Amino acid sequence: MPGLEVVGLSDVAPFDEPAETGATFEENALIKARACFEATGMPSVADDSGLCVDALNGMPGVLSARWSGAGDDANNRLLLTQLADVPDERRGAAFVAAVALVWPGGEIVTMGRMPGRILHAEHGDGGFGYDPIFVADGNTMSNGELSPSDKDAISHRGQALRALAPEIAVALGEP
Amino acid sequence: MPGLEVVGLSDVAPFDEPAETGATFEENALIKARACFEATGMPSVADDSGLCVDALNGMPGVLSARWSGAGDDANNRLLLTQLADVPDERRGAAFVAAVALVWPGGEIVTMGRMPGRILHAEHGDGGFGYDPIFVADGNTMSNGELSPSDKDAISHRGQALRALAPEIAVALGEP
Repeated sequence: MPGLEVVGLSDVAPFDEPAETGATFEENALIKARACFEATGMPSVADDSGLCVDALNGMPGVLSARWSGAGDDANNRLLLTQLADVPDERRGAAFVAAVALVWPGGEIVTMGRMPGRILHAEHGDGGFGYDPIFVADGNTMSNGELSPSDKDAISHRGQALRALAPEIAVALGEP
Repeated sequence: MPGLEVVGLSDVAPFDEPAETGATFEENALIKARACFEATGMPSVADDSGLCVDALNGMPGVLSARWSGAGDDANNRLLLTQLADVPDERRGAAFVAAVALVWPGGEIVTMGRMPGRILHAEHGDGGFGYDPIFVADGNTMSNGELSPSDKDAISHRGQALRALAPEIAVALGEP
């Protein structure tokens, strides 16, 4: 977008990042974007995302990063343990992302969703988080086995950001 | 009930206990009661129960006993970790029990529910499972601090069994 410069958190004066206490991805994305907007005065974009597992009623959800309390490897092991007796037909899941824009004129949240299912073991060491135990619909390889560009093309976060882009143009007065 | 003798699993010939693969307490209670009825030919009662936490969309639910994969103490620690950032107003939970009766004439399932909330640490060493981190509505002490009789009076399992008792009488032809 001409005339628009994107800066990251490391480019602005430090501020207290808020606790992610929302019950939904949308709430957490807004909490973070609002905090950044209040601290910097600049239009702010923030995301929140996670893995929603059908057999866990949509959890880990907003608790995805904190599911085991002990990091990504432990999260994957815990999820596989919890689903050990869950048959293939009930192993559906989706990565979901919310991206929020907060600017002087208002707030917008867009969503992205990558449906798939949970494997019975880890496959691949690419990606991060739950990627090694998740295979997206239409794929045979886990997200941990995909190239970064193949994953970006289908990812929940990519979808949400692509949906937000035209809204940013409108919100910030670009034609 | 006159003329009715109750026997336990240890009183009958051993049989393969089925995997608890149901998605609900009702399904699991029925799976167990049907397996017992098929193995013994006797009217059979089985229960399934667990803790449903609002902030976890009703989980651990049917996975309560297997939530951490490492036993009761680890289950309690994991749940407290997962809820660490969840404020008091969103710590609602309920113990839920399903009790199934399977007999030659049919199947009946009754339910019990004990609402309450999840504490921020373990209290008391009575009861079992999640009792030390759960306080029932109307109580100030955790279930782990209640006497067995005080807990039985309000428990989900007690409610479900009391609801089943008259059904048993009808099902088995007692007046």
